[in-house]
Amino acid sequence: MSEPTIPPKPKSHGRLSISASLQPRDLMAPQRVKGAWCAKIVTLFPDAFPGTLGLSLTGKALDMGLWSLETIDLRPFGEGRHRNVDDTPAGGGAGMVLRADVVARALDQAMQGAPRDRARWPIVFLSPRGRPFTQAKAHEWAATEGLTLLCGRFEGVDQRVIDAYGIEEISLGDFVMTGGEIAAQAMIDATVRLIPGVLGNMASTEEESFADGLLEHPQYTRPTVWEGHEIPAVLQSGHHGEIAKWRRAEAEKLTAARRPDLWAAHQAKKGG
Amino acid sequence: MSEPTIPPKPKSHGRLSISASLQPRDLMAPQRVKGAWCAKIVTLFPDAFPGTLGLSLTGKALDMGLWSLETIDLRPFGEGRHRNVDDTPAGGGAGMVLRADVVARALDQAMQGAPRDRARWPIVFLSPRGRPFTQAKAHEWAATEGLTLLCGRFEGVDQRVIDAYGIEEISLGDFVMTGGEIAAQAMIDATVRLIPGVLGNMASTEEESFADGLLEHPQYTRPTVWEGHEIPAVLQSGHHGEIAKWRRAEAEKLTAARRPDLWAAHQAKKGG
Repeated sequence: MSEPTIPPKPKSHGRLSISASLQPRDLMAPQRVKGAWCAKIVTLFPDAFPGTLGLSLTGKALDMGLWSLETIDLRPFGEGRHRNVDDTPAGGGAGMVLRADVVARALDQAMQGAPRDRARWPIVFLSPRGRPFTQAKAHEWAATEGLTLLCGRFEGVDQRVIDAYGIEEISLGDFVMTGGEIAAQAMIDATVRLIPGVLGNMASTEEESFADGLLEHPQYTRPTVWEGHEIPAVLQSGHHGEIAKWRRAEAEKLTAARRPDLWAAHQAKKGG
Repeated sequence: MSEPTIPPKPKSHGRLSISASLQPRDLMAPQRVKGAWCAKIVTLFPDAFPGTLGLSLTGKALDMGLWSLETIDLRPFGEGRHRNVDDTPAGGGAGMVLRADVVARALDQAMQGAPRDRARWPIVFLSPRGRPFTQAKAHEWAATEGLTLLCGRFEGVDQRVIDAYGIEEISLGDFVMTGGEIAAQAMIDATVRLIPGVLGNMASTEEESFADGLLEHPQYTRPTVWEGHEIPAVLQSGHHGEIAKWRRAEAEKLTAARRPDLWAAHQAKKGG
């Protein structure tokens, strides 16, 4: 039925673990830094990675071996001469569906050496059908040993492989993208910054938005007067109590205006 | 107060417009394809672009000149020898705030040649304080002439420049990222695919999730039997009415389980 697939070579990023050994070591073989959180990405576009994740804070952490990244090209696992990975939906309809057998072969390769317990190493399909990605999910994932992300493009994936592999469907938000690659990067970014040692200044994490269920108050910095606009006098008063009160009131006003959902939850919590 | 800034050279992507001229043309100067939608990105990490947007469908559309991309490096607009772009928050607190004067200079450069009417060309700051990005927002932006996106990293931006420049704050979701660059890519991806000519198969757009406020039903494709798991019989029946009924029931079940918010809105609409 299917031609034998070419064993593909996963691409690794991040520092390799170094250990003394009498055996010669294949430097291109995927090796995780011992204990470091690892993202494995099954995609038709491995060149998309590390992308922006290779820059700035996430990039430095990747170079330091605080996390690692491995891409698994889905294409070589495809069927036939053209290595087709998808086919038309059973029962008709537009679009294409990723084949269960093709996805399963790629996941089997990706999950080699990873724990089978999905709580320790989730497999995620990036899909608008999923539960929404949240900060709580980023915290949950940062506490795992790693994550395998399956990126589709334009298409769903056969429900049988979702069920058989215990794949979690997660959505970046209520909008449609051409593929899962950018969504994967967004979720990895949010997760990696929560890994111990990645963020230099922990205080800034704690003070960030959502900490108390309110959007952040307006911020100002030097110069004190810009184009005739002054920083609000209270922020220059040095009176910490008044500053805190002003910021709280502004945060509440902003949340009520922009996020009726958060505001309602905040009010309910206060009342309860 | 501030040293003279080096006039930075924006980086352009996408096909240049071609026109006969007796004047020699600076091939590196930013030029938009006539009438093509343009994303201008003010960022400390111009190397992050086009990134994933340069691949697949969005990349092909970029090469074809259906949209264009320009990055404006924020750094050269900074203050002093070190070109500082941020400073500590007025009134105290953790984190840093992007300076109004620095951001204003970068935006002035970015907006050269762009219409001043914000409905025709919005300026957007990517921030967890913003209103959530949605498919409706992507449609709204796809109907503009272009978009200027300001990416911060870890920090807010001085409220005075937000007010003075009519900057729209938009959030990718309820999670915290290290910077706005990946969020910008996600929003540009969702917007660009709605630009006429970018998507080949319009049918797939229309049938996608959210069209009727429900998550998409499960999908299946060949092989008919995979690892002992069969495609549901109804999908192989050829009975279009039964297939539609089954899909509808599955979509409703899934939406109720995963997205109580969408389900409530759907129920309210049905009842109203």
